[in-house]
Amino acid sequence: MSDLEAQKSAARSWFRSLQEQLIASFEVLEDKAESDVYQSMEPGRFEFEEWERGAEQGGGRMALMHGRVFEKAGVHFSEVYGEFSPEFRKQIPGAEEDPNFWACGVSLICHTRNPHAPSAHMNTRMVVTTKQWFGGGGDLNPMLDRYRTEDHEDTVAFHAAMEKACGASPSGDYAAFKKWCEEYFWLPHRNEPRGVGGIFYDHLNTGDWDADFAFTKAVGQGFLSSYPKLVAKRMEQDWTDDDREEQMFRRGRYAEYNLLYDRGTTFGLKTGGNVKSILSSLPPVATWR
Amino acid sequence: MSDLEAQKSAARSWFRSLQEQLIASFEVLEDKAESDVYQSMEPGRFEFEEWERGAEQGGGRMALMHGRVFEKAGVHFSEVYGEFSPEFRKQIPGAEEDPNFWACGVSLICHTRNPHAPSAHMNTRMVVTTKQWFGGGGDLNPMLDRYRTEDHEDTVAFHAAMEKACGASPSGDYAAFKKWCEEYFWLPHRNEPRGVGGIFYDHLNTGDWDADFAFTKAVGQGFLSSYPKLVAKRMEQDWTDDDREEQMFRRGRYAEYNLLYDRGTTFGLKTGGNVKSILSSLPPVATWR
Repeated sequence: MSDLEAQKSAARSWFRSLQEQLIASFEVLEDKAESDVYQSMEPGRFEFEEWERGAEQGGGRMALMHGRVFEKAGVHFSEVYGEFSPEFRKQIPGAEEDPNFWACGVSLICHTRNPHAPSAHMNTRMVVTTKQWFGGGGDLNPMLDRYRTEDHEDTVAFHAAMEKACGASPSGDYAAFKKWCEEYFWLPHRNEPRGVGGIFYDHLNTGDWDADFAFTKAVGQGFLSSYPKLVAKRMEQDWTDDDREEQMFRRGRYAEYNLLYDRGTTFGLKTGGNVKSILSSLPPVATWR
Repeated sequence: MSDLEAQKSAARSWFRSLQEQLIASFEVLEDKAESDVYQSMEPGRFEFEEWERGAEQGGGRMALMHGRVFEKAGVHFSEVYGEFSPEFRKQIPGAEEDPNFWACGVSLICHTRNPHAPSAHMNTRMVVTTKQWFGGGGDLNPMLDRYRTEDHEDTVAFHAAMEKACGASPSGDYAAFKKWCEEYFWLPHRNEPRGVGGIFYDHLNTGDWDADFAFTKAVGQGFLSSYPKLVAKRMEQDWTDDDREEQMFRRGRYAEYNLLYDRGTTFGLKTGGNVKSILSSLPPVATWR
């Protein structure tokens, strides 16, 4: 096996395993929920759907849960390959000379039922064209304004986990990746951020594949060690109708971001990705009053 | 007054008057509603908000109603002018030589509460750069699948009104504008239409301004003579929870279209339009289960 094939294989195994670990940790919270509000509902379980992009072009394993703690959560694994369409070749590093690509990763989005519990997004991937790199990140999206500050304890805890992930490998650069996240998850027409940030990175290739891969693994692990704890801490809190209304409003903004600006969404829809898994990021219910 | 100034003035007056007529006809339906489901709610009234684009750049008069028949309806007048930003000049006919523009029109979107009553969109405008033209159209967006066919009586009635509007002036070309509408209001990623169509036209300048203006007026009048009647016919029908659920699902698709594809939305957001009126097209509540 060539080095590249061995790397692809290692990345594939990790992303598959990360999908499993995330799913398991969310299902544990579904079982644990004990407030009255959850008693009329069964603990949620992920449902799986395998999809193929086309003959010899890869596909993925979509996992979607409509639970009681997680009103809607998607944790999707995909491994896709083939040729970029002509319109895309100029935009993707290394694709102009040769349109062949391979991309593998995990993408996650959680919309919690309790407005006190933050929503979150995480995505890590390895991409190969004539070049190769890692990309991804994780960011926290609290729904209530009083949680949406840099110094709220949940924000602090999540940022600390992302900073630790960056510290775990020479490939991580917390200050730069935090700033990138703030710039990326920004709604210009609303002049406001999508959430309270985290990290974002792309086209990461330091020349040391092992370090870059270790960093990408650390991002997944950091998310896993942090986000479920934040949900556990908030999921039993009482909420009011006003809280729920504010959550619905904030989810509307979230949908605006994903449909107007998110490159992953646009990229996925234009490269013949699986529409169902790409748009599973959209909130279960949202309002624009 | 130059010919152009007289034309702008005539168009402005018409669009202002059309806004008033539409508002009046919707408020009549708010008063008329008599089913039990409406009894706990007050008849809706439009609320007005004047906005300015900036010093000497025009603005508009936004009218938004959260009613009982019309869960959310926006009927907006705007008259904006100034210079197109460099990125836009190449996309707009006649703007490359001289970036100055003037645009005036009415834009409408109705989201009805009763899932049996169709939602609808209508927009007509006059635009002046170094060239000048009219654009707009009207299209019907029934929420329930059993209404979303070419031969449903509501579709037939709405199409007939649009066909009649096209027949009222030599500038109207029903077959072409109907096809344009079908192509424009299409969700490629879902491989489905947004609604059941109507008409769409742009850059209309036949060389006979009076005829083009008469046609644009006829589109507004045709909409006014047809859509409120369809709502009146459906608004007292009983609906089930399943109907409401289907309506919420369909509204999600509507939001996808407007944020992913609608040129008016993109154009407005990028030219410093009034975000609140542009995005008032988004449904009051939508679901993505």
